[in-house]
Amino acid sequence: MMFSMLAWNTDDWQIDLTDALTMNRHWTGNGSVADYIPELRWGDPNQLGIVVTSNYGSIKAGDCGMEFTLQSIVKILTLMLALEDQGEEKVFSHVGSEPTGDPFNSIIKLETTSPRKPLNPMINAGAIAVCSLLSGQGVEGKMSRITSFISTIINREVGYSHAVHTSEKETGDRNRALAYFMKDVGVLIGDVDEVLDLYFRCCSIELTCSELARIGYFLAMKGRLEDGCQLVSKATVRLVTTFMVTCGMYNASGEFAIHVGIPAKSGVSGGILAVVPDTLGIGIYGPSLDDKGNSIGGVKLLQDLSKRWDLSIF
Amino acid sequence: MMFSMLAWNTDDWQIDLTDALTMNRHWTGNGSVADYIPELRWGDPNQLGIVVTSNYGSIKAGDCGMEFTLQSIVKILTLMLALEDQGEEKVFSHVGSEPTGDPFNSIIKLETTSPRKPLNPMINAGAIAVCSLLSGQGVEGKMSRITSFISTIINREVGYSHAVHTSEKETGDRNRALAYFMKDVGVLIGDVDEVLDLYFRCCSIELTCSELARIGYFLAMKGRLEDGCQLVSKATVRLVTTFMVTCGMYNASGEFAIHVGIPAKSGVSGGILAVVPDTLGIGIYGPSLDDKGNSIGGVKLLQDLSKRWDLSIF
Amino acid sequence: MMFSMLAWNTDDWQIDLTDALTMNRHWTGNGSVADYIPELRWGDPNQLGIVVTSNYGSIKAGDCGMEFTLQSIVKILTLMLALEDQGEEKVFSHVGSEPTGDPFNSIIKLETTSPRKPLNPMINAGAIAVCSLLSGQGVEGKMSRITSFISTIINREVGYSHAVHTSEKETGDRNRALAYFMKDVGVLIGDVDEVLDLYFRCCSIELTCSELARIGYFLAMKGRLEDGCQLVSKATVRLVTTFMVTCGMYNASGEFAIHVGIPAKSGVSGGILAVVPDTLGIGIYGPSLDDKGNSIGGVKLLQDLSKRWDLSIF
Amino acid sequence: MMFSMLAWNTDDWQIDLTDALTMNRHWTGNGSVADYIPELRWGDPNQLGIVVTSNYGSIKAGDCGMEFTLQSIVKILTLMLALEDQGEEKVFSHVGSEPTGDPFNSIIKLETTSPRKPLNPMINAGAIAVCSLLSGQGVEGKMSRITSFISTIINREVGYSHAVHTSEKETGDRNRALAYFMKDVGVLIGDVDEVLDLYFRCCSIELTCSELARIGYFLAMKGRLEDGCQLVSKATVRLVTTFMVTCGMYNASGEFAIHVGIPAKSGVSGGILAVVPDTLGIGIYGPSLDDKGNSIGGVKLLQDLSKRWDLSIF
Repeated sequence: MMFSMLAWNTDDWQIDLTDALTMNRHWTGNGSVADYIPELRWGDPNQLGIVVTSNYGSIKAGDCGMEFTLQSIVKILTLMLALEDQGEEKVFSHVGSEPTGDPFNSIIKLETTSPRKPLNPMINAGAIAVCSLLSGQGVEGKMSRITSFISTIINREVGYSHAVHTSEKETGDRNRALAYFMKDVGVLIGDVDEVLDLYFRCCSIELTCSELARIGYFLAMKGRLEDGCQLVSKATVRLVTTFMVTCGMYNASGEFAIHVGIPAKSGVSGGILAVVPDTLGIGIYGPSLDDKGNSIGGVKLLQDLSKRWDLSIF
Repeated sequence: MMFSMLAWNTDDWQIDLTDALTMNRHWTGNGSVADYIPELRWGDPNQLGIVVTSNYGSIKAGDCGMEFTLQSIVKILTLMLALEDQGEEKVFSHVGSEPTGDPFNSIIKLETTSPRKPLNPMINAGAIAVCSLLSGQGVEGKMSRITSFISTIINREVGYSHAVHTSEKETGDRNRALAYFMKDVGVLIGDVDEVLDLYFRCCSIELTCSELARIGYFLAMKGRLEDGCQLVSKATVRLVTTFMVTCGMYNASGEFAIHVGIPAKSGVSGGILAVVPDTLGIGIYGPSLDDKGNSIGGVKLLQDLSKRWDLSIF
Repeated sequence: MMFSMLAWNTDDWQIDLTDALTMNRHWTGNGSVADYIPELRWGDPNQLGIVVTSNYGSIKAGDCGMEFTLQSIVKILTLMLALEDQGEEKVFSHVGSEPTGDPFNSIIKLETTSPRKPLNPMINAGAIAVCSLLSGQGVEGKMSRITSFISTIINREVGYSHAVHTSEKETGDRNRALAYFMKDVGVLIGDVDEVLDLYFRCCSIELTCSELARIGYFLAMKGRLEDGCQLVSKATVRLVTTFMVTCGMYNASGEFAIHVGIPAKSGVSGGILAVVPDTLGIGIYGPSLDDKGNSIGGVKLLQDLSKRWDLSIF
Repeated sequence: MMFSMLAWNTDDWQIDLTDALTMNRHWTGNGSVADYIPELRWGDPNQLGIVVTSNYGSIKAGDCGMEFTLQSIVKILTLMLALEDQGEEKVFSHVGSEPTGDPFNSIIKLETTSPRKPLNPMINAGAIAVCSLLSGQGVEGKMSRITSFISTIINREVGYSHAVHTSEKETGDRNRALAYFMKDVGVLIGDVDEVLDLYFRCCSIELTCSELARIGYFLAMKGRLEDGCQLVSKATVRLVTTFMVTCGMYNASGEFAIHVGIPAKSGVSGGILAVVPDTLGIGIYGPSLDDKGNSIGGVKLLQDLSKRWDLSIF
């Protein structure tokens, strides 16, 4: 039986959620916090928190008080904005739409694939190319469009961590390699330093689990805000949700689709934003990561909930 | 509005289907019939046919009278049988579950990926590895299990084309390369010639559009036959359906998910088997292929129907 | 000062050779005997022997009594014969002439390089393609041409090890993958099983160090036998000698050229055939291999002698 | 018969050289001038000139009056200096010594090879890594060491083209990608912008054919200047000469070794510096390039001379 809002009972669901969190918290011991961006090392590997938002409000369990940086989760937000700014055709002339079996920071396919564009907007190269397509005056102007886009969805003024942004810039040489390669082959337009600065800032935007869940719920509602305003077109939301399924969980997306079946996007800070279409938004924080870069406790928790509540879209 | 069985009106849907076929038939002129297996060259590029099966029966449009060989479509049937035979854990110790950005017959990842197993069961290497896991006495015994499995679903004794089987064997050197590579690295167990013979026979099984639609409906019904018998576990069906989304349409799967959003598996003979979960099974035949190896008219037809009837799972 | 035959003094050189062998024998402890072909496991890792042949006769040191199989060393002999049989243009329409940074059994470049032919005749794929070009009636006929070619050079009837041949056939799946891939893309003509059978037999031809040295001396004399007969054209010898420099020592060829500078070809049985143009032929046997597949003691011994006698061509 | 200085007769050789140039000039019509660095487009594709320097002085033919930029030829000069500055062990901890089948600007192997260092110092990535190892205060200090090193060899104050340097900087995004990738994996130490600035300046150093020939003769003399001073160690010269054979002519090095057999290094400006050990230095200018990036007329001219004068080292 598919998860049904008709049957929503906040108390029952809360009991389930708390139980699932308790049962899966131990997984955090099997992973480790990302260390390739120094500032991320401060994450507490024992933390695990979840917020589930529906038409009836939100329930939460575990460690949900923290703000953390979006990292790769922001890729779905910049993609939405680029699609609304430039249209599907323009965006997909710069980035492909196929999943890849390669790691998120791999450069090989940029050289071997014809035409030479990143395979999809969820790998780093693709997300950097998407950033270069955003409208706005300079880095500041584009950044303020992104933050105000997010602010509108979650109804709170958002900002980014300057410490993480600095850390990303200092250690972002692989992303520079990807960007200059794309610049060389004509996929990336504009100034590489500016595009990367924007990309690093976007990765450093800070939200809480509740706010992730709210964005998830916004996607579940097909881009409609709670006041009924259609902020983003349904077509854009469908497209982004599809990418979450085929490439949202790095190169564990296929396995996640099988065992969880919920459109989701993770970041190396330990966040996961998940969407049960028409129904739920889910925000997770758990900085202990598995070897593919996904929150190890978060994935297990979603797998558990998917079974308990029959959330898989498949 | 999501496609709803409550609103099924055979006459209206038939009009829609006929219209969609008429509107999209011209696409067949933009592709070409597969020529790498000589026997496939006999396909008539102008043909395009579709059957849609639901709880209320079937409707059809276009050229549906022909039998044609399953080719890659059989990969979902052998995967189901292997999963039922050996269990998920055993199967996925021999084949991965991640989509790949590489062509269906690429050998590169077998050398570069660690552990060295094919990325997923929908590419040739993966499907060959799956064939090696099927239970049964010899090639004949295994083959008769597969054909009787399919016969049970479609309620008709099925066979395979000896001409196509011979043609596949004669021109199957790339598949031999894949198989021997897998044998060398220990992923493929058993005699290579026998496994390939079985694989080629499976690819040569002949069905009609109606029968593809019936298998699709069987998957839509989560593995339950029309008499109510649960032939295949729901878990297996879910898994197979998920693979249809992430890797069912060769390396155009990502784009197909975005623009059509229906779990589907294609073959180079021009067949497509599609599944609208809980609702519809669809069988298509159109041997004129696009450059990725998918029925060019079939894809356009499904895209049109997905919009008309709101069939996307996303 | 370049090694000079004018200064050849058998006693002095013998003292040098014995000393070099004594000093370098300990390296055999740092490697290990090839195990991927079961029959090769019988090699005694402690053995190391060398024979140096010049105009003045031969000197030897260490373990030179054994016959061992040629393995990859035969690649230079089959290449010579193919060049004489088919001419340079025909041969190089099936195999390239560029060194590769990839391992000898890599398959990747066959898929990624255009045109799709093996990069050079010293990697397995290239040597198999070369075998397919040899003249002769069937496997037996071609094989007897190769053995009689070698017999003429060393003045002794040669044969091949049936045990090793059987072992190669049983474990030759990677080579089968390479051959079928080449068959598929049209580089390899003829029956794959026959070509591989021939290739495996060639690899199993057994010689001693003295005989390797004699072949080396034959190359040093630009293809002239001791009776003055020009068995192979100078152009063919030059070509083969060049390949020994650019790709003779697997993917350690570049380092070997720098530190040793002598044209050489190694085999995983532990043999090395080396050529000092116009001057010396060298045969080495030492089955303990380094991680690139070259005789670890043999390489060190050649490096030592190259310095002592100033043998580098650079 | 090997080319012999004993038989040197300036008049005869001059006639040969003039004839060879005349016979091969037409090849310039089969190639085209490099266009990926805009400033190089000004080269006149019809030009072809050669200077041959020996113990007896120099002879020349064709268009030898022009200065042109060194481009990749400088890689052998920076490598010599780095080896003298840092020693072999240090240099080869940052760069490998194996030839590669990939193009000079390929990035793939940086990701797939372990350890992750460029395969050799003749491809762009390797040469950039070598530049980062040069001693000297800042870009200016390092650059002045390189130019004074060259000035000492050719006995003339050398400089670099600011126009080409600017053009290289403006279009050097692929090199930036290579450099940042190496920075990311720890192979490249120091500031990327500074290393690339140095690299681009080095590529822009301007010399004439006569001066290339003089450097070639310096290498032929094993690093000894005409006044008898040993400017560079013999070991360093041997190493550099070896690289010229295995990787000096981009990914046509193998073919060049077979058909020409002279250690040589080319640049996309159309220059070739060649060395006949102990005997000759050769400088060539011919900006019309073949599809691998080597001077098309220059290669044919060297092939002709190698046959006429028996110059091959093989």
